[in-house]
Parts: sequence; C-alpha cells; structure tokens
Amino acid sequence: MITALAGGVGAARFLQGLVQVLPPSEVTAIVNTGDDTLVHGLHVSPDLDTVTYTLAGAANDETGWGLAGETWTTMEALARLGGETWFNLGDRDLATHLYRTHRLADGAALSEVTGELARAWGVEIRILPVTDDRLSTRIQLRGGPEVAFQEYFVRLRHEVPVSGVRFDGAAVARPAPGVIDALEGARGIVVCPSNPVVSIDPLLAIDGVARVLGKRRDRIVGISPIVAGSALKGPADRLLRELGSEPSVTGVARWYTSWLGTLVIDEADAALAPAVEAEGVRCIVAPTVMGTPERVAALARVVLDALG
Amino acid sequence: MITALAGGVGAARFLQGLVQVLPPSEVTAIVNTGDDTLVHGLHVSPDLDTVTYTLAGAANDETGWGLAGETWTTMEALARLGGETWFNLGDRDLATHLYRTHRLADGAALSEVTGELARAWGVEIRILPVTDDRLSTRIQLRGGPEVAFQEYFVRLRHEVPVSGVRFDGAAVARPAPGVIDALEGARGIVVCPSNPVVSIDPLLAIDGVARVLGKRRDRIVGISPIVAGSALKGPADRLLRELGSEPSVTGVARWYTSWLGTLVIDEADAALAPAVEAEGVRCIVAPTVMGTPERVAALARVVLDALG
Repeated sequence: MITALAGGVGAARFLQGLVQVLPPSEVTAIVNTGDDTLVHGLHVSPDLDTVTYTLAGAANDETGWGLAGETWTTMEALARLGGETWFNLGDRDLATHLYRTHRLADGAALSEVTGELARAWGVEIRILPVTDDRLSTRIQLRGGPEVAFQEYFVRLRHEVPVSGVRFDGAAVARPAPGVIDALEGARGIVVCPSNPVVSIDPLLAIDGVARVLGKRRDRIVGISPIVAGSALKGPADRLLRELGSEPSVTGVARWYTSWLGTLVIDEADAALAPAVEAEGVRCIVAPTVMGTPERVAALARVVLDALG
Repeated sequence: MITALAGGVGAARFLQGLVQVLPPSEVTAIVNTGDDTLVHGLHVSPDLDTVTYTLAGAANDETGWGLAGETWTTMEALARLGGETWFNLGDRDLATHLYRTHRLADGAALSEVTGELARAWGVEIRILPVTDDRLSTRIQLRGGPEVAFQEYFVRLRHEVPVSGVRFDGAAVARPAPGVIDALEGARGIVVCPSNPVVSIDPLLAIDGVARVLGKRRDRIVGISPIVAGSALKGPADRLLRELGSEPSVTGVARWYTSWLGTLVIDEADAALAPAVEAEGVRCIVAPTVMGTPERVAALARVVLDALG
C-alpha cells in the first residue's frame, strides 16, 4: 500500500502516473481540504475535486480546475443577475457541489461523500480528505487583511505578497477515518509535487499527522514542486520566498526537513543535490516535469524505486 | 395603489393582466413563502420566482414553473452522480437560487433579495415576500407522515390524500417590511386565483395580516381559483374537499368568508352566485379563465371595477 499526501493539480497529475504502475486499490490519497470554501452556499472542495476529476480523465487540463468540455450557463445567468462570479462554477461541476452540500446537510461526513463521488466517477484509488472537520487556510496579506485562501488564490490571482499562513480549525479538527492508519500502515508515503505551504502543510496541521510522519521518515519520498527555481504552477515559489525559505529544491528540503526522508528533484536542479543532502534529506535526481503520461509513469517508478 | 395576495402560477398570470390596466408602480404583490425550501443547500422560493419570471415574460408557461428555454446540464450531471433530482433546477434558474442563497448568507433579508432579483429581471411591480422569517407549509398526509410542502407537491405530485395543513414558523414570523402598510394603505386588495389552502392561508397566518384583512373587507375582491368544480391547476379542489369545505366557488367563499368582501366567479358557475352570496360574500360573474393576455386584462378590469 502506498499513501500519497496530495494537494490539487500537481498531486492529481502524479497520482495518474502512480496508477499506471500500481493497482489503484493499493493507493490512498490524503487530500488537502484547507482550500474548501462555501460558494453561494455550496460546499466546494477544490483539491478533492481536482484529484477525482483528473483520475476520472475528466479534468480540464488547460485551466487546471474544473471539467473538460464544461458549459457556463448558470454563471452567465448569475452575472446577468449581478451576482458574484469571480469563483467560476461550470454547469457540470455544479452538480458535484450540489451533491456534496446536500449529503453534508444530511449528516454525511466529507470522507463518505468523497468516496461516493469517486465511485460515481469510476475512480478506484481511495481518496480521503485529511479531515471531516472544518479546516480553513487563511492568508495574511503583507500590510493588508487576512483573507480566505480562495480569495487570495482565485480572486487576487495570488499576485499579492503574503506575510503569513494559518490553518483555521486545525487545532480541533480530527483526522478523517482511515487517515492515520493509511500513514502508519503504508509501505511508503509519497509527498506529491504540491505546494508545501498551502497544500501539504495543512495536512500536517491535523492532529497526529505530523507525529506519524516524524516516525516514518525513512519511508517518505517527496517530489519537489519547484523546478529550476520556479513552481510549475501556482505560487509555491513565491510563498516559500515570502515566508522565509527560498524558491528552490533546497528550500523545499528545508521546509520538510524534520520528517522527509528523500526528495526527488529535477535534472535541471542536479547541481543542488548536495545542498538538499546538506539539509539532511536524501536526494534523487530524475526528470520530474510531468509532460506526458509516460513521463509521469516514469516519475512514479522512480518514487517507488526510492521506497525500495 | 392595489395590493395583491399571491401564490404561484395563477397569481402570476393575473398580475400580468393587472399591469396591462394599471401602472406597475401602483401594484404590490404579497407573495407566499410557505413553499420555500432548501434544495441541495440552496434557498428556493418557488412562488416568488414564478411571479418574478412571469412578469419578466421569462416563465415556462408549459410546465408552470421555471424558465422558458431552460437547459438541464447540472441536473443531468447530478443524476449521473446518483444525486436526488425530483426537484428540478434548470441551469439558468439555478443562478437565481445561488444569488438568493449567497445574499441571505450575507445577512440580507429575503425582501431585499426579492427586490434585487425583480430589478435584475426588469420587473416593475413591488414584489414582497409575506415574511422575511422562516415559514414552512407542512402537509399531514392522511394516515401517513407529515411532509414538507414540496415533498407533497412535487415528489408526490399532490396525488395523495391530505388530512391537515399547518404553517410552521408562522407563530413567530413577522410580516416583511411594507406588508402591513401595503394592506392598510391600498385602495383595494385583490386575492389572486391561488390555492386558498396552501397559497393564501399561509399569508393570513403571519401576524397582523388577517387582522388588517378583517378590517378592510369591503375593499377586498377575490377571484375564485375553482371553476366548474375544478382547480385550473394544482390541488386546490382536492384540498378544499379533503379539509372539510367543497371544491366549488361556494367552498371558496366559505373558506374566505370572515374577511372577503367580493368574489369573482366564472360564468360557468353563474348558477352558484346565490350560494356564494348566502355565504355572506358579494358575487360577481365574469369570464375568469385566463386563456389569453386580453382575457387576463379584461379580468383585471372586472376586479378594478368591483373595487369601485
């Protein structure tokens, strides 16, 4: 069994590779829910949906969110009514949010609903939200207000400086059923190439997760989301710099140093392998840019080999 | 100023006639909200929407609910996910519910949101929900459970016997701002051809409404929703019979006898005019079937004439 720590697009892409080289039934993804938000009263779980849609082969690869071939009838009508439309909800994507909101209101746990949606989409890996409880990533804008993650990420297009990040609710949130077992019992734990600050850190903020990871260090392999000093997608580079680390594979190793055993870095960063090792993290150099399904599968093989 | 007591389709249709013979700015509609319901977490106000959409010329006349030329992308996707789809929400209609739910969550009153939606649709009459507070029509099925109105009306297609109706929340709900003034200050009050039991009675259940109506009896003209013993639409005939009255213009007069001054009945029921008057309600006979815009306007003129 392999357990993956996952955010959104980068994680979803890597998981697509993993299921090319492992039976899906042997994979559990523990997914960030700090980005979850209420949009017009609907419970939206962006990372859970990105992972599910991507593994279902239905994701929109161009935008990095939502469904391929989507239509926008409701959003266009909402714009005509003068409603807020900065958080885009496609017509088919809306069905997911209606389903989730309805089931949660009925008393179902987010982990149950996530399983139902995954089955409906024919996704065979186990997708677990890190918690069934409220977890809300809050972004402190430099010299400005604290805002909800989606406000920073979508509305402000992560183009503003950040001075702090916190995970509201984490102090009382419990891990979803299966999360701790999946970390304790896995043959290996993979840290997907996700944003360390706002995708992986929220997972560690949940009671018990960091403790288990600290005990399993030699079974944990991560893939750097930073290649040649830049995030392939999103603000990981910018956030690492703004929050006191650096936008490099070394910065990633430093961020994870207390619990990460091995970091896979791209060939473009081969010269930094000694610097990664100097942070106390074993370093493997391999092609990490997930350009084609073959390359993603090859990366998954590198990670499995690293787990021995 | 004319104030109308309104339910859904029949009321909306009559109001279309009223604005042909009166400036829209002189008309206030006080609309039933007992049918309001949460659908997948969204606040749906069926009667408010029917009135708004109809006056905007956008209603689907064939179904009697929703928008003309609607598409169903989200519902079809929800069905594929295994979600509940018995309450149909069109793609464009959904925008109304997203807007309303969002604004209510922001703390806006239903009456404010209703005004915003009416303006967005270019509707010029004043549309007021009878209350901004929760009002929930509950239907006691004969020999069965009590169910929410939409469960009876939509899911069970009102094909089951009913032994009682109550308006949950009415004991503490206050009239929306403007409702009592619109009743006290109107030159005349029109009772639209709506279901007496589940469209008009919920209005009377709100504090102060029945009291004002009782004082203005001679300024109140109603139109019978029953023609030749049948409701033109919906279960008004059935409910009147099941709840101890009778499915006839006489039954309608009896239902409203304590506060209705005049009842307009269809020519098909002319023979029952003496029976209506025997209930203590003045009776006017006129064509009431609203088949064409001209007929609806003519009916509106009859009502205005009756108000003197």
